[in-house]
Amino acid sequence: MSGHVSLVGAGPGDPELLTLKAIKRLAEADVVLYDALVDRRVLDLAPKARCVDVGKRCGKRQVAQAATERLLVRLARRGWKVVRLKGGDPFVFGRGGEEALTLSQAGISWDIVPGLSSALVAPALCGIPVTHRGLSTALLVTSGHDLDAARTHLSSLIPLSTTVVILMARQNRPALARILLSSGWPAQTPATVIQSASLPDEKQWLGTLADLEQPSETLDLLDGAASLLVIGKVVALSAELGALRSMQTVLHASVG
Amino acid sequence: MSGHVSLVGAGPGDPELLTLKAIKRLAEADVVLYDALVDRRVLDLAPKARCVDVGKRCGKRQVAQAATERLLVRLARRGWKVVRLKGGDPFVFGRGGEEALTLSQAGISWDIVPGLSSALVAPALCGIPVTHRGLSTALLVTSGHDLDAARTHLSSLIPLSTTVVILMARQNRPALARILLSSGWPAQTPATVIQSASLPDEKQWLGTLADLEQPSETLDLLDGAASLLVIGKVVALSAELGALRSMQTVLHASVG
Repeated sequence: MSGHVSLVGAGPGDPELLTLKAIKRLAEADVVLYDALVDRRVLDLAPKARCVDVGKRCGKRQVAQAATERLLVRLARRGWKVVRLKGGDPFVFGRGGEEALTLSQAGISWDIVPGLSSALVAPALCGIPVTHRGLSTALLVTSGHDLDAARTHLSSLIPLSTTVVILMARQNRPALARILLSSGWPAQTPATVIQSASLPDEKQWLGTLADLEQPSETLDLLDGAASLLVIGKVVALSAELGALRSMQTVLHASVG
Repeated sequence: MSGHVSLVGAGPGDPELLTLKAIKRLAEADVVLYDALVDRRVLDLAPKARCVDVGKRCGKRQVAQAATERLLVRLARRGWKVVRLKGGDPFVFGRGGEEALTLSQAGISWDIVPGLSSALVAPALCGIPVTHRGLSTALLVTSGHDLDAARTHLSSLIPLSTTVVILMARQNRPALARILLSSGWPAQTPATVIQSASLPDEKQWLGTLADLEQPSETLDLLDGAASLLVIGKVVALSAELGALRSMQTVLHASVG
């Protein structure tokens, strides 16, 4: 009897933001391989399953990608129902494509259950529509981890034309701001850093591109967990549309 | 007693791809204002509610955006729990930001329940990771409806550097392909058109940028409903990663 692997997106963290399909897969799972970014309450939805942490987080012990992929194949070959649970969406900066290829090449039955990507959800929960009539008709999503790649993508954009969302932006934050500034983006372009959106410890910093480029004690307060950066005119809506909701902590550059 | 408006993303159509939070809001709703793109089975999850179609679809009768916004305010002032249900995500080409601003300015309590955007889900369900190691480290999402805006965004991209997702691409399909071709994108760049992803009548067309530019009877088969366009190296993975799943209809340019 052959098993099955579901690549499941866990969304931004709040279990209420899981899809029905994800919840079904978790309820039926024999084993769950999960990332460091997955909330404990999500794992509680898999009562039958053995849960294995294969999380990748900078500077900590981690299971190599290739080892995770071998493990997925081995577990499925035992006939188990395997859930590969990833924060956000497996196919948006989640390396889910690599796992899917390995499974496909090994002849393992698999499917994908998309999850809410923090690239879209984090801004939304801060009152930022990534597109908005008169302000933005496009969205660029990239990662700040590889600065050369980010430079390729960011430096070609027409200043202010696009909402820019940068995942894994923590370490290269000032350098990323500098790329946009030197590409002609105005210093006063609204910018925000969002951390742990949808979770009890969510935090948002609001400022400008110029603020982002500088060392900042307020910004350092956000450096505990995965954060993302949103830059563009639409960020200005956060002051009005974020006000009615209960974001736990909002920091302002000017207060820093 | 004051009411409340929830801007709720209905995702791509399959009710199993709704979030738990969306299902809760629907179950509690007194009234649901929905778009043409929302599946009937999703409305069935709001048994108490009166459901009002305010859908906007090209060339058909529709309720103007301003009228929808006035209606939201009026219904909330009656003390009702209102769900504004939109296909995909309200804040991704969904005009949810405009509705949120109107509500905020009218002093109405509101929140956002993000949904899965078809910009990410449609490719995923066709076995296309929008980012993939060695193939793509960025994603541009835009709309094909306004060709001038699309030209601004597309012509500045470095060819093949980015996965391009174009929503509402139906009418301007050849013109959009031409913009990329004249910006240096290779004629053989893999391209796909996806329609009604996650629904029983889902269809996918696979071809190249050059194919997209030509009139095509196969492509015309897809012109019944909202479709989106994905262009870039990652689309080539669809042949392998889409094979194991049950996409109802896959059309190939070469068969046309």
